[in-house]
Amino acid sequence: MRYSKRTDDIIDSFIMKLISVSKEKGMISFATGLPDGRLFDTEGIAKAAADVLHDNPKEVLQYSTLKGITPLREKIAARCRTEMNFNVSAENILITNGSQECFDLIGKMFLDKGDGMVVDDPGYLGALQSFSLYGPKFIGVPMNEDGPDTAKLAEALKQHPKLYYSIPNHQNPSGFSYSLEKRKEVAEMISGSDCMMAEDDAYGELGYDGRIGPPVRSMADNVILTGSYSKIISPGMRIGWMIVPDEMVEMTMKCIESSSLHANSFSQCIMDRFLENLDFNKYIKGLRKEYKRKRDLMLDLLDDHLPPELTWNRPSGGMFIWLRTPEGTDAMRFFDSALKNKIVVMPGRPFHVNGGENTIRLNFATANDEDIKEGVKRLAKAYDGLF
Amino acid sequence: MRYSKRTDDIIDSFIMKLISVSKEKGMISFATGLPDGRLFDTEGIAKAAADVLHDNPKEVLQYSTLKGITPLREKIAARCRTEMNFNVSAENILITNGSQECFDLIGKMFLDKGDGMVVDDPGYLGALQSFSLYGPKFIGVPMNEDGPDTAKLAEALKQHPKLYYSIPNHQNPSGFSYSLEKRKEVAEMISGSDCMMAEDDAYGELGYDGRIGPPVRSMADNVILTGSYSKIISPGMRIGWMIVPDEMVEMTMKCIESSSLHANSFSQCIMDRFLENLDFNKYIKGLRKEYKRKRDLMLDLLDDHLPPELTWNRPSGGMFIWLRTPEGTDAMRFFDSALKNKIVVMPGRPFHVNGGENTIRLNFATANDEDIKEGVKRLAKAYDGLF
Repeated sequence: MRYSKRTDDIIDSFIMKLISVSKEKGMISFATGLPDGRLFDTEGIAKAAADVLHDNPKEVLQYSTLKGITPLREKIAARCRTEMNFNVSAENILITNGSQECFDLIGKMFLDKGDGMVVDDPGYLGALQSFSLYGPKFIGVPMNEDGPDTAKLAEALKQHPKLYYSIPNHQNPSGFSYSLEKRKEVAEMISGSDCMMAEDDAYGELGYDGRIGPPVRSMADNVILTGSYSKIISPGMRIGWMIVPDEMVEMTMKCIESSSLHANSFSQCIMDRFLENLDFNKYIKGLRKEYKRKRDLMLDLLDDHLPPELTWNRPSGGMFIWLRTPEGTDAMRFFDSALKNKIVVMPGRPFHVNGGENTIRLNFATANDEDIKEGVKRLAKAYDGLF
Repeated sequence: MRYSKRTDDIIDSFIMKLISVSKEKGMISFATGLPDGRLFDTEGIAKAAADVLHDNPKEVLQYSTLKGITPLREKIAARCRTEMNFNVSAENILITNGSQECFDLIGKMFLDKGDGMVVDDPGYLGALQSFSLYGPKFIGVPMNEDGPDTAKLAEALKQHPKLYYSIPNHQNPSGFSYSLEKRKEVAEMISGSDCMMAEDDAYGELGYDGRIGPPVRSMADNVILTGSYSKIISPGMRIGWMIVPDEMVEMTMKCIESSSLHANSFSQCIMDRFLENLDFNKYIKGLRKEYKRKRDLMLDLLDDHLPPELTWNRPSGGMFIWLRTPEGTDAMRFFDSALKNKIVVMPGRPFHVNGGENTIRLNFATANDEDIKEGVKRLAKAYDGLF
């Protein structure tokens, strides 16, 4: 095949392979990023679907506008105002096929082969894969429990990277979040640079005690803020969005048109109606409570079953716990041994630009209580005597 | 903005601008490529939505598989077998967010800046826009009433282009179709070349007297066949597909994952259930009959109202009539005058690599009978005394 040169640069996401492994009989999985399907409001969505198809079928089924439907963009803008204290116009919001499409669009718009691009280290693999097709030189900045190593970020920015991609809230894969100080510091550094930040807020609504801090976007203008309903309402509906600076609106529209014409209007209309009928704050409170409960369940079990040389964090939101095997050990061996014990975890190495050999990502959101209990026991067994 | 170099190459699609103009009060539009919303089977889709959300909500709302859901891919494969006499496995079929995403994926996989790419001249603008971001050198091959000028195609293939993009059935914009001889000739030429053909079959089901001929794909292996439910069931649901050679399956999966993770599973499950309940042949017969009736209505009106120096074709399917103003005249002036008379048409020039100044695309599928009647009268008035 006479493929393009850019195909040489695609990094392997590893994720889809794990999804197939996870489906094997008797397997328990802590590996993916799936929300808990038991929390979907199926009835609410079914009602919304029936209602819009009854009231307005032609809008739902026909081609739609490039930016996405206006009432949905207005709801996203309103939520930014009330929840993030961030004033944005619906004019700057564009609906996409999940946030994955945002990453592709951002890469397409900004990256030429060899351009510098700063990323969290570890960082979200799905986004890194998307950007990798556009051939950037990734510059990893260590992501710590309170956010990025800002001294390293300052150094990285000196190389005039085109983009800085980061998840400030309950990061995938680590569960780490920026402190307020780091948010301010990063905002100041980005404002003073020629680098565009891509701020991924996929997990922002899932702060267990509410939103954990303001978006960097609210303190700096050269930031694209991306969001998604995938983690809180339904990933299958594939609705994400990007909030872009004024001067980017037209170029983003062109690139959306070129990539997919426009996001799924069928999903958008149903989502918009669903939100119309929803007490959002009450709904999100329920999700937060349940995910917090499952986090606590897994944390308690890890405490009970794993030996003290393994360490992990206590995330304030999201879906992931970041586990470390002792310095110098190779967690891939833990991963392999876990597989043999019918428990799938996600190795941390692929999320890293540098290092990360002794890390593992655990998802506590997807599995049910019974599987979480059994899975942690299997993990303990898999680890026993390994190093 | 420090945009990528590829953004310099995007061609303007013109289409979205026309859609906004078309929405102005009192405007009649023959400009877009929208199917007739009155033909949507709203009830059938609403029932399918209610049923799958009742029976299988987690599959509908959760993340799904990268290739698209299996039963839908099997239905597409089955239809290829019965309707196209073309034996394909569901394993080679990947679902996308409309066929527009196929074009982006194909460009991404194959095109480096400066690579040769053969296209119909005129060719489908939306696809050309999508490919343009990957910087190919477009080589136009004249599209005639019976298909491409094969002498010119042979010449073009000598330049070792990476891709050949073409619509053999009821082409957008011209309504032209390949004759059987041309299909065979093109298949032979492509088979003997190192060029991959991207065969776009968006309108194949809309042959008024049935499918007009076998796909080139059935006679040549190095062909990607793309299709879509947008023109026959619902564009808002954004379901397209690509059928790729065995050796391309894995790379296509990687690129889909990187671009959008996977196509909308919500839409896919509903579409699959809708098709499950549908007598497809009866349904498609109804569509064909109605579009044929509208074609005839517009053709008769053009005969009655337009002067003899304007010429046009009689398409055997699809949605478009291709109109020519006299050689040497500039149809953009006709377009402008039409706009002033509150009738929007699509100028043919943007669809061309070379020439096409005296061409106009007319869509007879979208407007209702009354608007078709009034619109043609306005066209006649707009043309009167222009050249």
